[in-house]
Amino acid sequence: MDHRYWNANKALFEQLSDTLSEQAVIKYLVRAEAALLKIHIERHIGADSALLKEVDGLEEVITPQEVFEEEQVTHHNIRALVHVIQRHLPAKLAPWVHLGATSADILDTAAAMRIRDAMNSTILPLILDLLDILTALGDKYAALTQIGRTHGQAAVPITFGFAMAEYAARIGQSAQLLKELSCGLRGKLSGAVGAYNAMSLIAENPLELEQAFLESLGLQPAEYSNQIVEPEHLLRLLLELNVCFGIIANLADDLRHLQRTEIAEVGELFGEGQVGSSTMPHKRNPWNSEHVKSLWKVFSPRVITFYMDQISEHQRDLSNSASSRFVADYLAGFSAAAARMKTILASLGVDEERMKANLISFGGSLLAEPSYIILALSGHSDAHENLRRATLEAHAGGTTLKEVLRKDTEVWSILDRYLNLHLGMDADAFYSSPAAYIGMAEKKTRLITAKYQKISQALRKSVGGE
Amino acid sequence: MDHRYWNANKALFEQLSDTLSEQAVIKYLVRAEAALLKIHIERHIGADSALLKEVDGLEEVITPQEVFEEEQVTHHNIRALVHVIQRHLPAKLAPWVHLGATSADILDTAAAMRIRDAMNSTILPLILDLLDILTALGDKYAALTQIGRTHGQAAVPITFGFAMAEYAARIGQSAQLLKELSCGLRGKLSGAVGAYNAMSLIAENPLELEQAFLESLGLQPAEYSNQIVEPEHLLRLLLELNVCFGIIANLADDLRHLQRTEIAEVGELFGEGQVGSSTMPHKRNPWNSEHVKSLWKVFSPRVITFYMDQISEHQRDLSNSASSRFVADYLAGFSAAAARMKTILASLGVDEERMKANLISFGGSLLAEPSYIILALSGHSDAHENLRRATLEAHAGGTTLKEVLRKDTEVWSILDRYLNLHLGMDADAFYSSPAAYIGMAEKKTRLITAKYQKISQALRKSVGGE
Amino acid sequence: MDHRYWNANKALFEQLSDTLSEQAVIKYLVRAEAALLKIHIERHIGADSALLKEVDGLEEVITPQEVFEEEQVTHHNIRALVHVIQRHLPAKLAPWVHLGATSADILDTAAAMRIRDAMNSTILPLILDLLDILTALGDKYAALTQIGRTHGQAAVPITFGFAMAEYAARIGQSAQLLKELSCGLRGKLSGAVGAYNAMSLIAENPLELEQAFLESLGLQPAEYSNQIVEPEHLLRLLLELNVCFGIIANLADDLRHLQRTEIAEVGELFGEGQVGSSTMPHKRNPWNSEHVKSLWKVFSPRVITFYMDQISEHQRDLSNSASSRFVADYLAGFSAAAARMKTILASLGVDEERMKANLISFGGSLLAEPSYIILALSGHSDAHENLRRATLEAHAGGTTLKEVLRKDTEVWSILDRYLNLHLGMDADAFYSSPAAYIGMAEKKTRLITAKYQKISQALRKSVGGE
Amino acid sequence: MDHRYWNANKALFEQLSDTLSEQAVIKYLVRAEAALLKIHIERHIGADSALLKEVDGLEEVITPQEVFEEEQVTHHNIRALVHVIQRHLPAKLAPWVHLGATSADILDTAAAMRIRDAMNSTILPLILDLLDILTALGDKYAALTQIGRTHGQAAVPITFGFAMAEYAARIGQSAQLLKELSCGLRGKLSGAVGAYNAMSLIAENPLELEQAFLESLGLQPAEYSNQIVEPEHLLRLLLELNVCFGIIANLADDLRHLQRTEIAEVGELFGEGQVGSSTMPHKRNPWNSEHVKSLWKVFSPRVITFYMDQISEHQRDLSNSASSRFVADYLAGFSAAAARMKTILASLGVDEERMKANLISFGGSLLAEPSYIILALSGHSDAHENLRRATLEAHAGGTTLKEVLRKDTEVWSILDRYLNLHLGMDADAFYSSPAAYIGMAEKKTRLITAKYQKISQALRKSVGGE
Repeated sequence: MDHRYWNANKALFEQLSDTLSEQAVIKYLVRAEAALLKIHIERHIGADSALLKEVDGLEEVITPQEVFEEEQVTHHNIRALVHVIQRHLPAKLAPWVHLGATSADILDTAAAMRIRDAMNSTILPLILDLLDILTALGDKYAALTQIGRTHGQAAVPITFGFAMAEYAARIGQSAQLLKELSCGLRGKLSGAVGAYNAMSLIAENPLELEQAFLESLGLQPAEYSNQIVEPEHLLRLLLELNVCFGIIANLADDLRHLQRTEIAEVGELFGEGQVGSSTMPHKRNPWNSEHVKSLWKVFSPRVITFYMDQISEHQRDLSNSASSRFVADYLAGFSAAAARMKTILASLGVDEERMKANLISFGGSLLAEPSYIILALSGHSDAHENLRRATLEAHAGGTTLKEVLRKDTEVWSILDRYLNLHLGMDADAFYSSPAAYIGMAEKKTRLITAKYQKISQALRKSVGGE
Repeated sequence: MDHRYWNANKALFEQLSDTLSEQAVIKYLVRAEAALLKIHIERHIGADSALLKEVDGLEEVITPQEVFEEEQVTHHNIRALVHVIQRHLPAKLAPWVHLGATSADILDTAAAMRIRDAMNSTILPLILDLLDILTALGDKYAALTQIGRTHGQAAVPITFGFAMAEYAARIGQSAQLLKELSCGLRGKLSGAVGAYNAMSLIAENPLELEQAFLESLGLQPAEYSNQIVEPEHLLRLLLELNVCFGIIANLADDLRHLQRTEIAEVGELFGEGQVGSSTMPHKRNPWNSEHVKSLWKVFSPRVITFYMDQISEHQRDLSNSASSRFVADYLAGFSAAAARMKTILASLGVDEERMKANLISFGGSLLAEPSYIILALSGHSDAHENLRRATLEAHAGGTTLKEVLRKDTEVWSILDRYLNLHLGMDADAFYSSPAAYIGMAEKKTRLITAKYQKISQALRKSVGGE
Repeated sequence: MDHRYWNANKALFEQLSDTLSEQAVIKYLVRAEAALLKIHIERHIGADSALLKEVDGLEEVITPQEVFEEEQVTHHNIRALVHVIQRHLPAKLAPWVHLGATSADILDTAAAMRIRDAMNSTILPLILDLLDILTALGDKYAALTQIGRTHGQAAVPITFGFAMAEYAARIGQSAQLLKELSCGLRGKLSGAVGAYNAMSLIAENPLELEQAFLESLGLQPAEYSNQIVEPEHLLRLLLELNVCFGIIANLADDLRHLQRTEIAEVGELFGEGQVGSSTMPHKRNPWNSEHVKSLWKVFSPRVITFYMDQISEHQRDLSNSASSRFVADYLAGFSAAAARMKTILASLGVDEERMKANLISFGGSLLAEPSYIILALSGHSDAHENLRRATLEAHAGGTTLKEVLRKDTEVWSILDRYLNLHLGMDADAFYSSPAAYIGMAEKKTRLITAKYQKISQALRKSVGGE
Repeated sequence: MDHRYWNANKALFEQLSDTLSEQAVIKYLVRAEAALLKIHIERHIGADSALLKEVDGLEEVITPQEVFEEEQVTHHNIRALVHVIQRHLPAKLAPWVHLGATSADILDTAAAMRIRDAMNSTILPLILDLLDILTALGDKYAALTQIGRTHGQAAVPITFGFAMAEYAARIGQSAQLLKELSCGLRGKLSGAVGAYNAMSLIAENPLELEQAFLESLGLQPAEYSNQIVEPEHLLRLLLELNVCFGIIANLADDLRHLQRTEIAEVGELFGEGQVGSSTMPHKRNPWNSEHVKSLWKVFSPRVITFYMDQISEHQRDLSNSASSRFVADYLAGFSAAAARMKTILASLGVDEERMKANLISFGGSLLAEPSYIILALSGHSDAHENLRRATLEAHAGGTTLKEVLRKDTEVWSILDRYLNLHLGMDADAFYSSPAAYIGMAEKKTRLITAKYQKISQALRKSVGGE
């Protein structure tokens, strides 16, 4: 992620650095090695609290630089780390460092911790921020009528809050799964081929040892590992993140199109001195929404890499080594998009007058559906076809559906009676504006926003956020 | 899926036709329309059992041909279906057919049923077949020693059953999720933009009506729908199927490589008259495993399409219409691969002698790891480096690790003492073959096979299989 | 490609069957085997014209059914074919059938011919049809003014013909490359590992033999083959087809959005009885454009499979066997999309009045750019910033840019003088409508349409089309 | 590309920084703006050499920092750049800076230059290095016999040089195309919607102006641009780079498998103190080849993003803005993989003895093919089937093909006669080792290496490399 993105997301990326940077990688590897060493000490040397404290302090004293330098010699990152750790500890501990573990035990375990922590500390709170803004928008605009658009065509009315509730529900569902999958990441301590060959020389019960090791780091063991943890736990988390990314991209597309000059129902905040085009001074582009969509194009196809990394020959090959390092890249890309969407939504301009005006401008032709329904309910067998023709007639004659319907007095009186009975308004009023025909848009909106406000609060507690 | 694949998978594809063919599409659409019509009859006309029976019979009397012909006129498949249904029923029911529904209500609901049924009737049972064969292979070969291979290099020993248990565990986990996701597919009856606009003219409580409609079809309603059900339910099922596909492809790769002439530890069954090469009469190719891998290359990248289909503008655009039809293609492709893998595994030749011989042929060099562990446990601080040099010395001198280690009598006696104490065998025996150094491979295998045999039985019951 | 697509593209798919169906596969394989056999006869038996005629007749007499049945025995398609060919010929020819060839020699050579022929007979003519319609639309509407839209925002004017010329140029460039790449497909006759091992026993100069064999089929030899032709020739053709697909999808998106209710500048032809929505009788959806976009979502990601198939271990593995069969699927999918786009364009409704009205409706604010340019040319150093403010002022004051500019008499006279001098119209006229500010839109359109009309004619001749 | 990759490729990435870093982006943008400004000066102010020199000096004096700071105000990168340039020049030039251009004119033109220069200065020379090493390996080992492997099975012999020649030919073809495509990148100066609206106010002939502007930067104009250059020129370059990436990945896979313990025909250089495994001191892993394959998994799927970026609505949307920035990422990833492959090949250990020994170890069974050919040439109609049975018999009886064939004295004498006549060796010698049966492997190798050594030299000259 280059300089420009770093600048645009300084606070966010600094927070992610705590779990995803090269420094963080070393820090978490030391944490995993230390946890193993402490277990060896307790079981083989005795619970010497001074020693244990020294081990706990490793994370503070070891610098990435030291490890990188040692790696120039060994050409092996974990062996380099082991040498560095040994240097920082009393000589008698040296043989116990890393003993019985294979590199992947430490690497996979540390990666599971890092990604879990990145999710809980940064990414899930960001998603919950989005969720909260969406439920707030849903509430605020629950009753603001808007054209419902299918195929880009005016369909029947909704409310703008109802449109926002869609994204609250979809992102909310995803947030719950992401929380679950983050906590389901696994570690391992089963050695070079997963059969606890080495650990069986050291411990009576290597399964119990693995359990204790991982518990001390807040993780569960892989059900089956060869040299590496089964790839599916991480894969499923990344796939669900990409699901969430798709929802955000869908929202970005909707907002882009609602900002078209001809529609102009919403607008992104524009700074006082901000320039829309270097040559067209009048432009106000939906550039943030475009940016979110663009990031989706960059990152979404990377699931192919994640799926490719499922395949590792026999007890493992290393052809997922470089590729798995790009998981951090993906997490940063997702975060940048989510943060940008948060900015858009938090300052979204909603042109209520324009929204209502657009709805009315299409006249009663949007009311072909209720007309057909009412006629059908009143026993017309060919109601749909009648209305299709009526709209064609209105269109051809440059008049409105209302005028065409009114000409047939029998039809008109059926409509009028039904509307009075069920909606408490006469046909004349009903056909003057489609705004009365919003079904349960408002009610459904409120059901969803209430539900997801609760869910968001519960999730925030569980991730330890504000 | 072309002719060749159809021929190779006749029974399987015929079974899938019950849910995925064009005929099945019509059958399920009729089922959905009938369910809605029955609710209308019960609530508005009364529970006239003769009428209801006639509606139930629609599935039998309506042919796809009739619908296709009507579609030539309407250019709209659901409107065509509605006309055909009306033709087959008493005139007084005509206005009630499809009343209040939008096409997508029927299409999405029918698709959810079809895919759920395809999963339960065909695909999940097939996956469970794979699972059962894998646990059986795990059990059978739990103690058969084999080289563990990491990076394509001889590492430390495992057992062949342990290698099979990997796939039992991974596929078993996936099977459980697939069951859950299949049953989580959703339907809808919320109308053209999801706001129950039309249904609100017909029913007091459209949410209750939707619930009743879907319950009668064994489905739950979408939490939020616009014109269509939120795409994520189906998407997640397809993503998990692709996870399962990746596991199967990984297994295929392992089997391919174990069949290399230089390894030759397993073999696919070769028919009596079967030809391996049109010009090299001696060839026995791993063509089934190659075929499975090849199908994975075809179908796995299609997740990109599934993700793209998440994005539908505003209350929906139709740009997922063609693409969603290819879900059936994907399900057929997955099934063909799973069925082929079942064939491979069910007749897999395992060359036990060769497996053991290969293990021994690498001599004691595989035992560098336990040597280093024992020395470290005995207080050598630089045990790993010592052993690295010892293997280099053995390699350079054309001798074995055993001979190199034995030269250092102090080291040798440490090893001998430890091995006697912990493994009950002396160093001489231990270093003659790596077969004793299999850690918990056998025990772990049995834990996993036992667990997944139970899970498979439970899942089979729940999908209504044998 | 399922039933529905078959029905919708009957003539097209029947034409493709000549090169892509299972029947065609057999036909082309026989053609390749016959070509080899004839060379053997001429060189080893003598140019016996009766014999050669019999060989030429093989294509007519051999049925796919016969080959499929034999394959049930051999489980090897080419060996089966060889047996069938031998059956149809005098016994003395039997040993010469397929002699010196490996299966892949025949399979790869036949596939190159089939795909080349599919391109020349069906796909390229279809693309040229698109090209011709686009240049015709370009010509017809070269001067019809339309809003230029960037970021979905009204920018500065273009003409509708200019918008069409974009697609003519892009598709035209692609058509030229596709022609070249189709003719660059390669065959081979280098045997099991590409080293002409077997052929070296038969011929003095196997390279010359390969050349003669392929020349008789209109192909060139691979520069390097192992068991198979280098994958890159076919890969590049497929990648370029996907480039062309992307251009068509881009056009589909533009047409979708131009059909939005709020824009409504173009329209797809709607049949008399055609239904837009099963519940909203007034709808006219851009369903063909949506269909094209949807097909792009299905097929475009398949390039991942094509790239994966580049990797074949050592002298080849078979893991591209199933996947390469799906090339036919891709070609059919591309063709379906191109054919649908042809239908859309051939009957495209262009609402000229609406297009002009939309342009005018945005008033002179689109003319901020020329105002800034003229002021800058007249020495204003901060012209861009001035105009940015002027548009904000116009927007805020509910007035037009023209009114704001006119207030500053100095500015207005500068503009007026410049416009009179360079465009021959006064400021008042210029600012009444943006229609005069179309730059070279018309001229550039005509340059491009003229160029590509010639190119299309030349390409049509070379592919042997009408 | 994170820290680890940077460290591992310091010199390479520093070289790439000259064209791909944020600094380089600014430098090239200034270069493009300067070129436009100089044209304006020459045509409107006069060829004032002091002024022109000042403009030429802009690249030196403007720092990225200055531009980034200005961008904090304008939120628009090109407008910010224009302000900074104006600051560094005499006031009278201010109105001429950027005049008539839209941002995309400058951005697209600068990007075309940067990528062309990155290709010519760094990436193509790297690919040519690979090509030269491959042709050298081809020459060196042109006659070193090796088992040809198809489906991972021993097939018939090749030479190791022949295996290397494959990659020389494939990479060599790609290098030629990459050169062509790099030089085919286009710039533009056609303004906000591509219709030269603004430029038409300034210049008599905007097409000629664009031509002059781009020529001064070594580029050609887009044939058709709207706000942006047609995406296909860059797309095709990236697609071909990905083709080249696939070839390199294929080579990496071959090398990985040739390093399997059971094959061990080649080896990556291992440093003196290098550690193969943190727990298994004996391991020598093919980690560089694995790394190359892993990078391919990361970067190859990104073509999906490149294809997605073809679609830009109407005269352009900005949804390709972020994504196009990742082109640099891709180029760096490709370069890292190519550089790593260069390292592997430059120090590749080839175990000639092992290669020959492996070939012999499979005994004469590899010679089933020539036996069948010779028998067929001698009139046996069922030669292939006979040999298939003979190899089964040899396999079942634990004997060799030679022994089985020799038992049939008639067959044996046919073989002996033919071999004496055509290969000048008797059957006994021929069947003792498959090494004589290498066809044209050596000759073809030398044809290819000679050809591509010349091509490489020519390409190096044209890219201005050493």
